[in-house]
Amino acid sequence: MAQKTVGFIGLGIMGFPMARHILEAGYPLIGYDIRPEPVEALAALGAQKGTSPKDVAARSDVVITMLPDSPDVEAVALGPEGILEGARPGTIYVDMSTISPTVAVRVAEAGRAKGVRVLDAPVSGGDIGAQRGTLSIMVGGDEATFQEMLPIFQTMGSRITLCGGNGAGQIVKTCNQILVGAAILGVAEALVLGAKAGVDPAKIVDVLLGGVARCGILENRGSRIVQRDFQPGFKARLHYKDMRIALAAGQDYGVPMVVSPLVHEMLKRMVLAGYGEWDHSGMVRVLEEWAGVEVRAFGT
Amino acid sequence: MAQKTVGFIGLGIMGFPMARHILEAGYPLIGYDIRPEPVEALAALGAQKGTSPKDVAARSDVVITMLPDSPDVEAVALGPEGILEGARPGTIYVDMSTISPTVAVRVAEAGRAKGVRVLDAPVSGGDIGAQRGTLSIMVGGDEATFQEMLPIFQTMGSRITLCGGNGAGQIVKTCNQILVGAAILGVAEALVLGAKAGVDPAKIVDVLLGGVARCGILENRGSRIVQRDFQPGFKARLHYKDMRIALAAGQDYGVPMVVSPLVHEMLKRMVLAGYGEWDHSGMVRVLEEWAGVEVRAFGT
Repeated sequence: MAQKTVGFIGLGIMGFPMARHILEAGYPLIGYDIRPEPVEALAALGAQKGTSPKDVAARSDVVITMLPDSPDVEAVALGPEGILEGARPGTIYVDMSTISPTVAVRVAEAGRAKGVRVLDAPVSGGDIGAQRGTLSIMVGGDEATFQEMLPIFQTMGSRITLCGGNGAGQIVKTCNQILVGAAILGVAEALVLGAKAGVDPAKIVDVLLGGVARCGILENRGSRIVQRDFQPGFKARLHYKDMRIALAAGQDYGVPMVVSPLVHEMLKRMVLAGYGEWDHSGMVRVLEEWAGVEVRAFGT
Repeated sequence: MAQKTVGFIGLGIMGFPMARHILEAGYPLIGYDIRPEPVEALAALGAQKGTSPKDVAARSDVVITMLPDSPDVEAVALGPEGILEGARPGTIYVDMSTISPTVAVRVAEAGRAKGVRVLDAPVSGGDIGAQRGTLSIMVGGDEATFQEMLPIFQTMGSRITLCGGNGAGQIVKTCNQILVGAAILGVAEALVLGAKAGVDPAKIVDVLLGGVARCGILENRGSRIVQRDFQPGFKARLHYKDMRIALAAGQDYGVPMVVSPLVHEMLKRMVLAGYGEWDHSGMVRVLEEWAGVEVRAFGT
């Protein structure tokens, strides 16, 4: 059976290394981006060049998008010169961006009307995960299309889960961002209190990691926070965008939210204060400025 | 060197098994509680019986308290017929209750004025940790007294840390409860959104455990939540008390708080709604009632 031809639209910090993994696994690949540079760079690795989303879709068996936000996906998938204009019945379209779950459902319905099979498949693991091909991929859609896509997903990710029907991948990604945001806020508030009360923040991190308060954020970022290292990681402005999606999901599905709006406001403040390019764990800085203290390991 | 005689005041669900471990390690032990039953039960295991905090202190080299809240510790330590009335210069007094850090500092100062050496040493690990002798013990006070107490702490706990001066143990315990509370709220909000959007909550737990959203609460309680098992664990009404301590610490040390007040209100609602004896992870129930959905694994 011949390899599927894969079209990949959106060759940014995430999309480029993801497309490269697919290409290196032996799939014919057509790359496209609104900027010519990454298209040329991918072509230098053996990819073909697309000229529009419609063009990419017309030449591919599978089209993947990796774009910043919901409006981008709507424009590229549903707009003029978009994917659905070029796709044929049977084409698979997989959106791997993190977008609104209800937009994902709408795109899937538009695809279905044209015989295009659509999956939502947002990822976590950041640019490092994209480079290493170790992303977590949360998939929404039908089982048969999921199975057909699995070998391609496996070139990009190490943990791939079918979460449910269309939109379910985005829902689980949103759940992930809500919990991560709450954990960051909890870590920040705990460390700021401890620091202002005069306890060594490095000691607090160490003790909390040893019990039920342990969490991925404390493991990955705790010692960096107290060493004042806010290099991303995952940028605050991207988590801010994801929390906008979470609030929209709360409205769309009718779920009163308690902690998500706070996380959203804290990330907004980070962006306003000029910390949007910092790791999201830099949220601690917002509370530090309020409390008039710095969370810094003793002796550093 | 003869073993220290240990007085233990407060023989409840935590204190009784802690005292038993000290006794079983070979220390002469004097037990006291306002209820006679646990004093008799401990005597049946070989302990002596105390008649008041003052009496216990007068007959002991080390006095330990394990009491519900700050006012209890103030009364038992500083009140009439209290520990400081019976203690001699050189006596060690260790409060292992979870109380206000500033109250802990005040008790330490009152002790110092009488030549009594005071440590605060709150624990985490719950009644299971107390029974197994695997508590985490967070200690505030001076290094020499900490070292002198270490063999006794080791009969009760498996992870024992000197966090700083008097009050530092309570501060770190408060930090722990803030982070755990934020994580519970994040888990609850994520699962309620996912459930109402129609995704299997068991799948969400599974996916989130595989990435940076992983946390002790999700590990220990995630699958129990979606199986509707809210057996404690750690009771909501006790975490509620701990969050009152956190809010008081925020006032005492001048730290504006963002997530702790919310966690406090959610736990208050649990108590008002009759869920105070549930595990604190039952906070999800409050959001469920607001959203009109139940977080239950598909097929259960």
